[in-house]
Amino acid sequence: MSPQAPSPVVGMVGAGQLARMTHQAAISLGLSLRVLAERSSDSAARVAADVVVGDYRNLDDLLDFAAGCDVVTFDHEHVPAEHLRALVDKGVVVRPGPEALLHASDKVAMRTRLGELGLPVPRWRPVATAADLAAFAEVTGWPVVAKAVSGGYDGRGVWVVADPAAAERLLGEVGSIRLYVEEHVAVRRELAALVARRPGGEVAAWPVVQTVQRDGICVEVLAPAPELAIERAKQARELAVTVAGALDVVGVLAVELFETAEGLLVNELAMRPHNSGHWTIEGARTSQFEQHLRAVLDWPLGATTPTARAVAMANVLGGADHDLVRRLPSVLGADPCVRVHLYGKEVRPGRKIGHVTTLGDDPAEVRERTARAAASLRGPA
Amino acid sequence: MSPQAPSPVVGMVGAGQLARMTHQAAISLGLSLRVLAERSSDSAARVAADVVVGDYRNLDDLLDFAAGCDVVTFDHEHVPAEHLRALVDKGVVVRPGPEALLHASDKVAMRTRLGELGLPVPRWRPVATAADLAAFAEVTGWPVVAKAVSGGYDGRGVWVVADPAAAERLLGEVGSIRLYVEEHVAVRRELAALVARRPGGEVAAWPVVQTVQRDGICVEVLAPAPELAIERAKQARELAVTVAGALDVVGVLAVELFETAEGLLVNELAMRPHNSGHWTIEGARTSQFEQHLRAVLDWPLGATTPTARAVAMANVLGGADHDLVRRLPSVLGADPCVRVHLYGKEVRPGRKIGHVTTLGDDPAEVRERTARAAASLRGPA
Repeated sequence: MSPQAPSPVVGMVGAGQLARMTHQAAISLGLSLRVLAERSSDSAARVAADVVVGDYRNLDDLLDFAAGCDVVTFDHEHVPAEHLRALVDKGVVVRPGPEALLHASDKVAMRTRLGELGLPVPRWRPVATAADLAAFAEVTGWPVVAKAVSGGYDGRGVWVVADPAAAERLLGEVGSIRLYVEEHVAVRRELAALVARRPGGEVAAWPVVQTVQRDGICVEVLAPAPELAIERAKQARELAVTVAGALDVVGVLAVELFETAEGLLVNELAMRPHNSGHWTIEGARTSQFEQHLRAVLDWPLGATTPTARAVAMANVLGGADHDLVRRLPSVLGADPCVRVHLYGKEVRPGRKIGHVTTLGDDPAEVRERTARAAASLRGPA
Repeated sequence: MSPQAPSPVVGMVGAGQLARMTHQAAISLGLSLRVLAERSSDSAARVAADVVVGDYRNLDDLLDFAAGCDVVTFDHEHVPAEHLRALVDKGVVVRPGPEALLHASDKVAMRTRLGELGLPVPRWRPVATAADLAAFAEVTGWPVVAKAVSGGYDGRGVWVVADPAAAERLLGEVGSIRLYVEEHVAVRRELAALVARRPGGEVAAWPVVQTVQRDGICVEVLAPAPELAIERAKQARELAVTVAGALDVVGVLAVELFETAEGLLVNELAMRPHNSGHWTIEGARTSQFEQHLRAVLDWPLGATTPTARAVAMANVLGGADHDLVRRLPSVLGADPCVRVHLYGKEVRPGRKIGHVTTLGDDPAEVRERTARAAASLRGPA
């Protein structure tokens, strides 16, 4: 008998901060994440033992990577759908599967499916021309929001369009990018419902959070969402559970929501650990990263119970001064309770290079302390 | 200007589970631990990106490893003292330094120094012959405890000696191993006081814990130590702070203590993250692993505040059945709140291969749940 039964190998396509934090979680489970990195300097590739450098757009690279993996999962949704299906055809265990992932990578597919499920979404329509866009706006009123069907993130691929002239300009600029348009919703605030699902259907849901965006980038997450009505929190959670089941999601699913005067609308889906769940590392009994691993391995899910009454997470964005390492000790010294997570990424203005989390009893206080630490780490804008 | 100021490189000599968990903590600080492993299959070497395979008993290997490290620290105390001094002479920043480490690797040096400091230790004496040992026992009474001056751990290098004949046998068996003898203390229970210290003297102390040993191996840690009188907890903490300062310790210091009817006695010192501090990963705002890194980097220390009223940690020891991976899902399923840490080590009977931690409000309940999970992971003895 071998001295130890081999541990399963989880392969993650993409080596950004999500893979980096998933590797940290994998270590506790006795695993070592295998990552497919674009470059050996990628965030996760700097800290993981099992790094394959390759191109996720190249099927041969994906197949080479998947060989020897017990399951393949993702830290982004940019792998071409036909490659995902080819992997499955070759016998690779892909979680979440291609059919589910389509709804994270193609927003028209997502909006269509959610509509079929009777779930609340903003009014929307695919558009090919400025005239399509203007016709839609005649119904909903200007402005409207144009979005790229695929590939947008962190505010990229989203345009608020004020009038027909702006629509003409946009359609001229975007070239071959497929677009759809949706009504400009009067958003009170944004929420996110995070769940994880195993292949057999077991689901675990974390408390619903508020996300705060600036220039289209998530800058803060407040857990639980302050002063959220119990009924609305329940509705958000059930909505996420419904989506996870209907789309057969395996792994973590983040449902980004608009809260309006009338209720909830689904904005986006992500089928991987998500920025709105970073607070779970310290703020919940089981982090989204460990939970994602447990789900894709078809292992029982962990408790999602919060560990404090109030948790705040703030992203650290790159500023003008690159010397993060010089600032770190003073930030640690200023608040010995703040938990810092740095991603080992090159500092570029506006880029997510880390996050900080604070736990406590008072939501306003933890939010303020967290924001202060994040601002200090960023340094001069 | 470079796009990112380089992060400091912390090198850790040794690649066991302590280095493995230190690497997890390093990742959050934007670092990647460099480890000196004996084998590429070592616990930390399986999960870290920056692994050097070499022999810590070989000065050239140590010097090669230290080149390019901003600071060198340790996951064990077995590096020869003369090599530590040679590293310092070559300009390597070694933390804790050789003078401090001597008191973790040489128990006669430790006992002598603690005596000079007026700190409470069991009566003891170095012994070269069975007659020395018997002469000591004439004063304290039989049995006595013989210990190896260096190199013992997890119950190895400790012998309870019942009578003169047993003393003769032991001295015949141990060969050239240097021994000392100490009185057999009537121990109520064992405690541990864990602190961390920066070069400038800043110290942070975690709550004092109870450690439970079986066959000389720590099997459980209860944090805080149940029903420990406030005055005694304070005394234990102050004792650890005194030792850290007097010996100029940098990094984590664990002071293992006997609690007797009369009070506290110092048993052992460790100058590295320690088994008695594994509970801090989830149970304190700052884990011993992150704190050790912050201390050796001379960064401000983090808060040691507990995150729950009661925390229990149990070691997972290897059993007869090696197939840990098969048992893991059912253990995760049996208690979704239990936090599991597996070390990726080959399973051998009695070997520490992981630990589990539970947090809660009731000390007895968390202890019971933790012990049950650890026993389930071990499987049949």
